[in-house]
Amino acid sequence: MIERISILGTGLLGTSVGLALRAAGYRGSIVGWNRGAEGARLALEAGAIDSVATDPLQMARESQVVLLAVPIYATLDYMEKLSGVLGCAHMVTDVGSTKAQITAAAGRLFNTPERAAFLPGHPMAGKERGGAALGDANLFRGAVWLFTEVPTWQRSPHSAELIKGWREWVVAMGSKCIDIDPARHDELVAWVSHLPQFVATAMSAMLEEKVGDAPELKDVGGRALSEMTRLGASPYSMWRDIALTNTEAVQAVLLALEQRLAYLRENLRTPELRDEFDQANKFRR
Amino acid sequence: MIERISILGTGLLGTSVGLALRAAGYRGSIVGWNRGAEGARLALEAGAIDSVATDPLQMARESQVVLLAVPIYATLDYMEKLSGVLGCAHMVTDVGSTKAQITAAAGRLFNTPERAAFLPGHPMAGKERGGAALGDANLFRGAVWLFTEVPTWQRSPHSAELIKGWREWVVAMGSKCIDIDPARHDELVAWVSHLPQFVATAMSAMLEEKVGDAPELKDVGGRALSEMTRLGASPYSMWRDIALTNTEAVQAVLLALEQRLAYLRENLRTPELRDEFDQANKFRR
Repeated sequence: MIERISILGTGLLGTSVGLALRAAGYRGSIVGWNRGAEGARLALEAGAIDSVATDPLQMARESQVVLLAVPIYATLDYMEKLSGVLGCAHMVTDVGSTKAQITAAAGRLFNTPERAAFLPGHPMAGKERGGAALGDANLFRGAVWLFTEVPTWQRSPHSAELIKGWREWVVAMGSKCIDIDPARHDELVAWVSHLPQFVATAMSAMLEEKVGDAPELKDVGGRALSEMTRLGASPYSMWRDIALTNTEAVQAVLLALEQRLAYLRENLRTPELRDEFDQANKFRR
Repeated sequence: MIERISILGTGLLGTSVGLALRAAGYRGSIVGWNRGAEGARLALEAGAIDSVATDPLQMARESQVVLLAVPIYATLDYMEKLSGVLGCAHMVTDVGSTKAQITAAAGRLFNTPERAAFLPGHPMAGKERGGAALGDANLFRGAVWLFTEVPTWQRSPHSAELIKGWREWVVAMGSKCIDIDPARHDELVAWVSHLPQFVATAMSAMLEEKVGDAPELKDVGGRALSEMTRLGASPYSMWRDIALTNTEAVQAVLLALEQRLAYLRENLRTPELRDEFDQANKFRR
């Protein structure tokens, strides 16, 4: 039923979706657009897209499904633009890491019977470095793909069918769909995704100051250090929008961790340390 | 030259050393002892040791090299016991994660021309779970093995030769030997090893309280969360001795991270966030 998909933004995620759709057997056409020509060229060469569009809005108009795979503020900008040019024969979805603002915009700009449908989505998959060159057909295999639709949205029967079809492709790409309230989403990802990122950034920045001038000492840390700081390589360009659109939830989890670390620090020589280890062991069981 | 090695404590590290020695071509005998009979049996079955001793001190007396692979306070206890029964034809080494106290004891109890030599060692390798069953001949491949000898120690020529021989086996097991001052060692490992552990414990304990009752949400975090909390499975029994013998250094790094997280938290919406990401990116380059 979905004969043409357009991918707006062929970075790591956009390119990976194109590759994963092909690997899952999608036979319709996939057209891509990217702000930088290099990213579009790489996605094309990798086979993630069949052709490169010159105008993203025209590309969207000519597709049934439009995937926005750009940073959050760029997603919000394109939502404004697309809502004016698309109608009830289209659906738009995204991969943004925070969902409250995007879902609010989706309710304001889409999801009436006359307008295009918008399905706010968030695949819990990625890498610490971006770009089309790292695109990976297996990126979504075994991952959770979160959706934050609002139950009261009214859509045309046609666009509702497109939503259903897109969800089936998400499953075909190897992901598990989970529906969740947008505010709950943003709080949850602050704990399980944004916290790991900001901790890795803080640890990496601190260690760079401490041992950055002694490269032989970086080897000393081994696997644990490497894992705990892997996300330190993540680009500011992507995380800026997350920090700006989920500020309060991220502040709350960072403060909670600061307090927990202080508690550990004050109890290194007391029996409370055992309770912390026991509690942590439970999480990993 | 080393014809008989005894491994006192056949947990994860002791068993792995036995397996790695064999994999590296060691043809002498390896005898083991373990507080729990099950661990000794598993090490024997895995081929890490040739036989199980019933008396650890007698086992040590009959060996040229004695590897202490028990927790730090147990290591300090055995150092006291061994110094009375071994002489200049022996060398003892250990794998303890903190080195200031062990190195001080080594100077007090060993390392005179009449006494056994003691080489304080610390392989930067391990797993988040212990036990002989996880023993791994490749555990030390590519790892750094730290030594904290004091240059003024006076040893018999024979035991000095044993030290040299043991260092060669460490290299043969795939590790890189690095010599470091014991106080500097304890400060360094607080940053690159103990910090990752206590952060993982704090995060895991906190997340257990937050999402422990919603197992489907654990999947949401994906690889990053899994990596950042892997060490949350580490046992208190091992880390208690580390916390007790490196308290001040660990307190200092935990406090430094608390402050760094607070700085990030206060700057989620300012340009300083970019500088933190840039600094972190540098560490991972």
